[in-house]
Amino acid sequence: MSVADQPAGALMAREIAEQPDVLERLLRDGADAFAAARGRIERFAPRFVLLAARGTSDHAALYAKYLVETRLGLPAGLVSPSTLTLYGARPDLADVLFVAVSQSGRSPDLLGSLTTARACGALTLAVTNDASSPLATAAELHVDVRAGAERAVAATKTYTAQLLALHEVLAGGHADLAALPEAAARTLGSVEQVAEVADRYRFATSLVTTARGYSYPTAREAALKVMETCYLGAQAFSGADLLHGPLAMIDAQVPVLAIATPGAGGAALQPVLDRLREIGADVVHVGGADGLPVATDGLPEEAHPIVEILPLQQLAWHMARARGTDPDRPRGLAKVTETW
Amino acid sequence: MSVADQPAGALMAREIAEQPDVLERLLRDGADAFAAARGRIERFAPRFVLLAARGTSDHAALYAKYLVETRLGLPAGLVSPSTLTLYGARPDLADVLFVAVSQSGRSPDLLGSLTTARACGALTLAVTNDASSPLATAAELHVDVRAGAERAVAATKTYTAQLLALHEVLAGGHADLAALPEAAARTLGSVEQVAEVADRYRFATSLVTTARGYSYPTAREAALKVMETCYLGAQAFSGADLLHGPLAMIDAQVPVLAIATPGAGGAALQPVLDRLREIGADVVHVGGADGLPVATDGLPEEAHPIVEILPLQQLAWHMARARGTDPDRPRGLAKVTETW
Repeated sequence: MSVADQPAGALMAREIAEQPDVLERLLRDGADAFAAARGRIERFAPRFVLLAARGTSDHAALYAKYLVETRLGLPAGLVSPSTLTLYGARPDLADVLFVAVSQSGRSPDLLGSLTTARACGALTLAVTNDASSPLATAAELHVDVRAGAERAVAATKTYTAQLLALHEVLAGGHADLAALPEAAARTLGSVEQVAEVADRYRFATSLVTTARGYSYPTAREAALKVMETCYLGAQAFSGADLLHGPLAMIDAQVPVLAIATPGAGGAALQPVLDRLREIGADVVHVGGADGLPVATDGLPEEAHPIVEILPLQQLAWHMARARGTDPDRPRGLAKVTETW
Repeated sequence: MSVADQPAGALMAREIAEQPDVLERLLRDGADAFAAARGRIERFAPRFVLLAARGTSDHAALYAKYLVETRLGLPAGLVSPSTLTLYGARPDLADVLFVAVSQSGRSPDLLGSLTTARACGALTLAVTNDASSPLATAAELHVDVRAGAERAVAATKTYTAQLLALHEVLAGGHADLAALPEAAARTLGSVEQVAEVADRYRFATSLVTTARGYSYPTAREAALKVMETCYLGAQAFSGADLLHGPLAMIDAQVPVLAIATPGAGGAALQPVLDRLREIGADVVHVGGADGLPVATDGLPEEAHPIVEILPLQQLAWHMARARGTDPDRPRGLAKVTETW
């Protein structure tokens, strides 16, 4: 069947459902590549890590930034590709590990950034879903996320596969994630509760997501999924930033999704949740005792993002279907985005 | 007069209007402090720069990141304060310049991050509007932005003063900004055209801002001003990121403010503007031939952000007044935000 013959949302639904298998396969078949990348990075002994990505992959890069800072104990930054590509900056990148994350490996500005970074002395690592892509070829190190072809425009399985690959390369050995595929499958099993929330949001005109720490990339990715599939203004704020201004726009008509699985990030969100309650906000929790179920038992906090995005992908899908849009074919978007 | 006695918006209006004087004073009275900070940073010879801030100051930090990458030729990153404060990361920060930007200098998480960074070997610089604040005292280097007391909750004059101070410390000597105060005064003089745009946005239910390169922090700050003062969901996207998903939610009902003053950033936004036109978006330009006037003649591109935010501050103010909110006293917000 061609894409045009699929019922609305069929591709995205299938790719969401594939994730336990994708994660299991990546843990198994990717182990050698992870170990090789880890070894090479260890020998290179970077002093700083730069991360470059766009869209969904940028949220995986943000996740990687937390891993680098907490697990490798190195300062890290998200690259502004434009400083390399528009303004011709040629920084000294000796001692720098440069990580580019891209589903397709075909974004010209990422390729330009990585090529420049390599010329400036960085060790370059590409994380893509296509081992033959220009980005994979241009980088000294490549990790294939092995998610299989992703046909829905809204990325789902490649996102969780990117998170897992980045975890294994940057924090592998710190934690055994063998329990992850099963946790993902259990989390996806709570779809009825997700559908109820989607139903409550049927007529929402905007949406806010919030989290702290490792869960903040999840908040960002959830907001993007909702924007892509439901054409709804959705904004993510770190809990701390929310209190620095954006709180003013939140009232009972702006639903808030708070991602707070057990751990330091969830605990740090508590004062924000208290403040949201004070102002009468409509808050739905993801994770934790009262939230949409996320199976995090036996997983370290740093692996929570890989499962906590799952009900939020399902939520975007259900909201899109309830609103009559086709999450497989968002208006105005192409699967591979070419930006310079 | 106490704050409660002021007519709605009087404080913010006055502080917006003060900016040419604030910039002139800072250029004159801050010169010695800028030179001292530059000298110390040069001797320290950092290999990497980390920037930490929240809210409006975070947009000044983002601007500084572009300066560091293009002018100092160093890789840079925006700190996730939570990795230092929540997760207890203790990275090796020898060779790292750590810059904290805060109007009040009183945010506990920034203070915690800066103190930790200093203990980890970084050279620390605080940019604040209060030389006796805890953050100013805790840092080895301090630059006072000399904006005078800021009483409106929505920051305006401290933002442009932060931008100027960061420019002078990080790129001082590259360009003479003597023309800046006059350019700011001329830009503020186009308020009637701004008020017309505010009137057109009277019933908008959301708003998107977009830009590339140096103007991207302006897009972020403009969105925050609108959220704080008008209680309107406003989102900023780099032009490149906009094409990676969020474009789907834009239709003729979602006004787009495109910041594109002459230069590489404005030129790079052109394909995004073309795409927005194709999908029938309602785009208002800021800067450039057809846009809200921004006086950038004689200023290098890297100084444009200091003037191009001015009509956007005015726009937020006019939109707030048209909608019946008081931009001086946004609901739910305090001037100093304490987050951990």
